[in-house]
Amino acid sequence: MKKAVFLIRSNDRKGLLSGISTFFYQQGFNILHCQQYTDNCENLYFMRVCLDITDMPVTRKQLAGSFEEYAKTLNLEYSLHYSDEPQRVAIMVSKTSHCLYDLLMHAQDEGDLACEIPLIISNHPDLEDVADKFRVPFYCFPIKKDCKREQEQQVIELLHKHHIDLVVLARYMQILSDEFINEFPGRIINIHHAFLPAFQGGNPYQRAWERGVKMIGATAHYATPALDEGPIIEQDVERITHEAEPDDLKRIGKDIERRVLTRAVRAHLEHRIITSGRRTIVFSR
Amino acid sequence: MKKAVFLIRSNDRKGLLSGISTFFYQQGFNILHCQQYTDNCENLYFMRVCLDITDMPVTRKQLAGSFEEYAKTLNLEYSLHYSDEPQRVAIMVSKTSHCLYDLLMHAQDEGDLACEIPLIISNHPDLEDVADKFRVPFYCFPIKKDCKREQEQQVIELLHKHHIDLVVLARYMQILSDEFINEFPGRIINIHHAFLPAFQGGNPYQRAWERGVKMIGATAHYATPALDEGPIIEQDVERITHEAEPDDLKRIGKDIERRVLTRAVRAHLEHRIITSGRRTIVFSR
Amino acid sequence: MKKAVFLIRSNDRKGLLSGISTFFYQQGFNILHCQQYTDNCENLYFMRVCLDITDMPVTRKQLAGSFEEYAKTLNLEYSLHYSDEPQRVAIMVSKTSHCLYDLLMHAQDEGDLACEIPLIISNHPDLEDVADKFRVPFYCFPIKKDCKREQEQQVIELLHKHHIDLVVLARYMQILSDEFINEFPGRIINIHHAFLPAFQGGNPYQRAWERGVKMIGATAHYATPALDEGPIIEQDVERITHEAEPDDLKRIGKDIERRVLTRAVRAHLEHRIITSGRRTIVFSR
Amino acid sequence: MKKAVFLIRSNDRKGLLSGISTFFYQQGFNILHCQQYTDNCENLYFMRVCLDITDMPVTRKQLAGSFEEYAKTLNLEYSLHYSDEPQRVAIMVSKTSHCLYDLLMHAQDEGDLACEIPLIISNHPDLEDVADKFRVPFYCFPIKKDCKREQEQQVIELLHKHHIDLVVLARYMQILSDEFINEFPGRIINIHHAFLPAFQGGNPYQRAWERGVKMIGATAHYATPALDEGPIIEQDVERITHEAEPDDLKRIGKDIERRVLTRAVRAHLEHRIITSGRRTIVFSR
Repeated sequence: MKKAVFLIRSNDRKGLLSGISTFFYQQGFNILHCQQYTDNCENLYFMRVCLDITDMPVTRKQLAGSFEEYAKTLNLEYSLHYSDEPQRVAIMVSKTSHCLYDLLMHAQDEGDLACEIPLIISNHPDLEDVADKFRVPFYCFPIKKDCKREQEQQVIELLHKHHIDLVVLARYMQILSDEFINEFPGRIINIHHAFLPAFQGGNPYQRAWERGVKMIGATAHYATPALDEGPIIEQDVERITHEAEPDDLKRIGKDIERRVLTRAVRAHLEHRIITSGRRTIVFSR
Repeated sequence: MKKAVFLIRSNDRKGLLSGISTFFYQQGFNILHCQQYTDNCENLYFMRVCLDITDMPVTRKQLAGSFEEYAKTLNLEYSLHYSDEPQRVAIMVSKTSHCLYDLLMHAQDEGDLACEIPLIISNHPDLEDVADKFRVPFYCFPIKKDCKREQEQQVIELLHKHHIDLVVLARYMQILSDEFINEFPGRIINIHHAFLPAFQGGNPYQRAWERGVKMIGATAHYATPALDEGPIIEQDVERITHEAEPDDLKRIGKDIERRVLTRAVRAHLEHRIITSGRRTIVFSR
Repeated sequence: MKKAVFLIRSNDRKGLLSGISTFFYQQGFNILHCQQYTDNCENLYFMRVCLDITDMPVTRKQLAGSFEEYAKTLNLEYSLHYSDEPQRVAIMVSKTSHCLYDLLMHAQDEGDLACEIPLIISNHPDLEDVADKFRVPFYCFPIKKDCKREQEQQVIELLHKHHIDLVVLARYMQILSDEFINEFPGRIINIHHAFLPAFQGGNPYQRAWERGVKMIGATAHYATPALDEGPIIEQDVERITHEAEPDDLKRIGKDIERRVLTRAVRAHLEHRIITSGRRTIVFSR
Repeated sequence: MKKAVFLIRSNDRKGLLSGISTFFYQQGFNILHCQQYTDNCENLYFMRVCLDITDMPVTRKQLAGSFEEYAKTLNLEYSLHYSDEPQRVAIMVSKTSHCLYDLLMHAQDEGDLACEIPLIISNHPDLEDVADKFRVPFYCFPIKKDCKREQEQQVIELLHKHHIDLVVLARYMQILSDEFINEFPGRIINIHHAFLPAFQGGNPYQRAWERGVKMIGATAHYATPALDEGPIIEQDVERITHEAEPDDLKRIGKDIERRVLTRAVRAHLEHRIITSGRRTIVFSR
C-alpha cells in the first residue's frame, strides 16, 4: 500500500489534532495511522500522520501545496515523505562485518528495509568481499595522516554524486569532521558500542570489563559534531557475568550493535523519527 | 490535573479521528493525549481520548449527554471515566504475600496506583497480618467442600455491598465459578504464574522445570469462564539456567508476578485498556 | 589455545570432583575451566572439564585410554572432544534466509563459530544465491508427495557421505521422519519460532497474534521424534504491543530466531551441552 | 540443610581444584556446590565451595583450624561462613519506601532473605510507619548542617552496638563520609538509580530524560570512598519511550531499583560474592 507520511512539529495549543485531521479528511484522505506526542516540559507538539494514497484524491503537488498553505496559517514545521520514493543509503564501515551484513541482508534478501544501497565506503579494504557478495560498489579511502581533510572531501562529493539521503556509520572507526557532519544534518546514523552515556569514546568493551558492569549495550544515534552526544534513536543491552572476558564482550556486543543499528535505520527510513534538541520522538508506527 | 477519559470502539471508517477530535475541540476541551489503533484484520477502530477538565467548559452531565448524542450518530461504543472518581478494588489472595504487598504499597505508600482498597478476601487466614499492617479489613472464607457455591455467593454479596469496581486475584488459588466471573465481566484481573499460553492450569513452575525451559514468566489477564484463556493484559519473563530448581523458579517468579500484576492493574485503573475478543488494546498513556 | 573437553555424567556421590580433578592434575594437565552441576531431583552429577593441551604431557591416545580406564572404575558416562578438530555442520533451510546468513557469517567472516559447513540442503531453490555468496555447495531436494521417504534417504546418505557431525534446521519447514531423527541422535538442532511449550506446531506467529500475547519468542532445541518436544537449549523473547500485526511478528521474530539458533549452535560446537531427559545442562564456558 | 561456605582467592596455578576438593573429601565432607573462576587478565583464581554440614564429621573449630593450616601452605586468602549464623543487616533510608518494603517483606514474610534486621536508620521521619508495620526499631538522625560528623559517629556506634554485619543503603540520600565507609569495608551495599557508569551523582532520572536515553536502569554496588565508583554487584534496565516524563522514569525506576538491590543483598547474604579490585565475582549458587 502506498503511503504519504507527514512529520509535524509545533508549539502545543488547543485544536491542533482537530484541525490537522480535519484538513486531511476534507481533502478526501484516509488516515492510516496518526500518532501525537506532547512534550509538556517544552510545550511542544509532535505528530506523525500516515495517509493511504493508493487512490489519491488530489495530485502529490496539490497535496504538498495545500498543506504548505495550511501549515503556514498554523506555523507548523513539517516534512512530507512518500513510501514509494525509496531513500538512498550509503554505508560506511571499517573492518567488522556484522552490521554491514545485517543492513544488506534486510535490504536485499528479507525486503524489510525500504531503501537502495548504491555504495559502501570504507577506510580499509577488508570488507570488499562482503560488498561483492551483495553486488554493491565498494569504495576504499585509506586514511593517511596528512590528507584526511581531502579524503573526507572526496567522500562528501561521492555521497552527493549518488544523491545519498542517509549515511549509516556501521562500525566506521574514524571520527568525522564537523564539516562532514554538518553536510548531512540529521542524516547520519552512528552505532556506538556501549550504552550511552556510559563509555563514550574509544574502547568501550575493554572499559566495560574493567568497570565490572553486569550488562553491556549499544546505542544508535544521529551523529552531531559533539562525539557520541547526538540524539539517541535506539538502545539495547544484554546481561553478562564476571566470566565474560573482553573478547566475549566484543562478540556478545556485535549481536546487540547490529540489531540496534538496523532498528534505528528502519525507524528513520519509515519516517518515524522527529528530533527535538538532544531527544528523539520515535513513533511506533 | 483532573482528567476525563473516553475509551471508544467502532467499525473503522474515514473521518473518525477528525470528527471526534473536532467534537471535543468545539466543546472547548484541551485534549491531553489521544491514541488510536486500527485493527486491520477485523476492521475495527479503537481510541482513547484524555481531556483536561481542570476548568471544565461544560458540566459533567452536559459532557456525558452531548457525547452520548454524538456517539449515537456514529454508532460508537464507548465508556467515560473521571480521574477524580477513584475505583474501588477488592484483592483476593490465598497464602503468598508478594502480590498483595505490591498492590497495597503502591496504592497507600507510593501513591501511584489510583484506587481505594476497601477489603481483602482470602480462603486462608495467613495474610490477615499483612492486611492489618495496611489497615484494610480482611475477610476469610475458608473453602469447604460442600458449600463452595454458598461461599462464593457470600463473597459476591460482599463485593457488591462495597461497590467494588475491580476484583484483583493476587495469587488466589481457587477456580472461580462461571457465575462469579460473569457477575464482574471485564472487571476481574488474574495473575497466572506462567508465560501463557504455556503451562495453563496448575503447578506451572514444576512443569516448567520438567520441560527444561530457559525462561520463566507471568501473565496478567482478565478472567473469563475458560480458565487461563482470558484476554492478556501484560506479560514478562526472566532468564533462568539449568541450575534453578523448582523452588528457585518460585522465588524468581514471584518478582515477575507482582510487577506484571501491578502493571496490569495500573493500566486498568488508568482506563488504558480496551478488550477486543481475546486481545487487549493497551494504550501507553 | 588448543583444548580438550570432557563432558561427564554420573550418579552423584562423594568424591567425584576430588577424584576427577586429581586424575587430570596427576596426568600433568592444567584445568582451564571446570563446571559441575548436581541435579538433586534426579541425584545426577554433570561435569565439564576443559584442559589446556598446548603442550600435552601425554598423547591423545594415552589420555583417551587412561581416562577410559579411570571412568570404568567410577562408572562415568563421558565424551571427549578436541577444539582443533572442528565439527562438520550441515544446514537445512527452506525459503527464509536470516538464520542461514547468521550461521554462515559467524562461521566464515566473524570466525566465532568453530565449524566447517560443507553443504546446505533445501527443499526449495530460493536460497541457492545465499549459498553461492559463501561458496557452500547447495543441494535442493524438492519434496514431492509420493517420494518423501526416498528423498529423506538421499539426504541421509549425503549427510553421512560428508561426515556430518551436526545438522542445523535453520527454518527448514518440513517435518523429519523418526528414522531421520534417530539417525542423528542429539545431533540435530531445530529453531522453533515460538516460546515453547507455547504454540507448538505450525503458524505460531499467527496464533500468537490471535491469542493476544504481549511477548513473542523463539526456541532452539534438539530434534526428537516428538515434534517440538525435544530438550530446549536456548530461548529468547521480545516485547510486542497490540499494534504489531502478524507480519510484524514475523519480522520481529526473525531477529529472535537467528540469535537463539546461533547461540544454541555455538553452545553445541563448544561442547557445553549435556542433555538429561527433556532438560539440557548448558555450561556457561 | 545446614551449609558451610568457603570463599577462596589465590594466584592461579595448577592443582588448586584438585588440592582443595581433595582436602574436603578427605575430611569427609560432601561438596554441595563448587564454582571456580580464573581471571586470565590478572592470573587470579577464585573459588566458592559449599559443604553439607548436616552431619559434620569434625567440629566447626576443627574445620576452621585444619583449613587455616592448609590455606597457609598454598597461600590462599579465604573466608568461612555458616548458613545457620544469619547476618545482621541495618537498612538506611530517606523518604521513599519501595526498597525498604522489599527487603522487609523478603526477610520477614517470604523468608527468602536469610538475615536479621535489628534496626532501620533514616535522616527523615517519613518511613517510621513502615518500620512499625514490620516491628523493626526505627532511628531518625535528621542531618543538620554543622553536626553531620557527630551524627555519623552516632550512627556508627549504633551499628557496632547492634553487631551489624551489613549496611544496606536503600535509597539513603546522603553521601557518607570516607570514615564511615572505611568502618565497614565491603559491607555497605548502595543502590544507585541509574545504569552506572552512566549518570553518576545526583538526579539521574532527570538527566536521563534530558539525554533522551531509551532505557533506564539501576545499579547495586559496594560503597567505596569514591562516590558511585564501587564494585558493581547487580544491574538491570527497563525500556522506555519518548512518552515517559521524568516522573514516569522515577516510577518505572523504583521497580528496577528494588529488585536490583534485593538481588544484590541476597547474593551477599548467601556468600556468593568475591570482590577483585573494581570487579565482583558473583557465583550463581
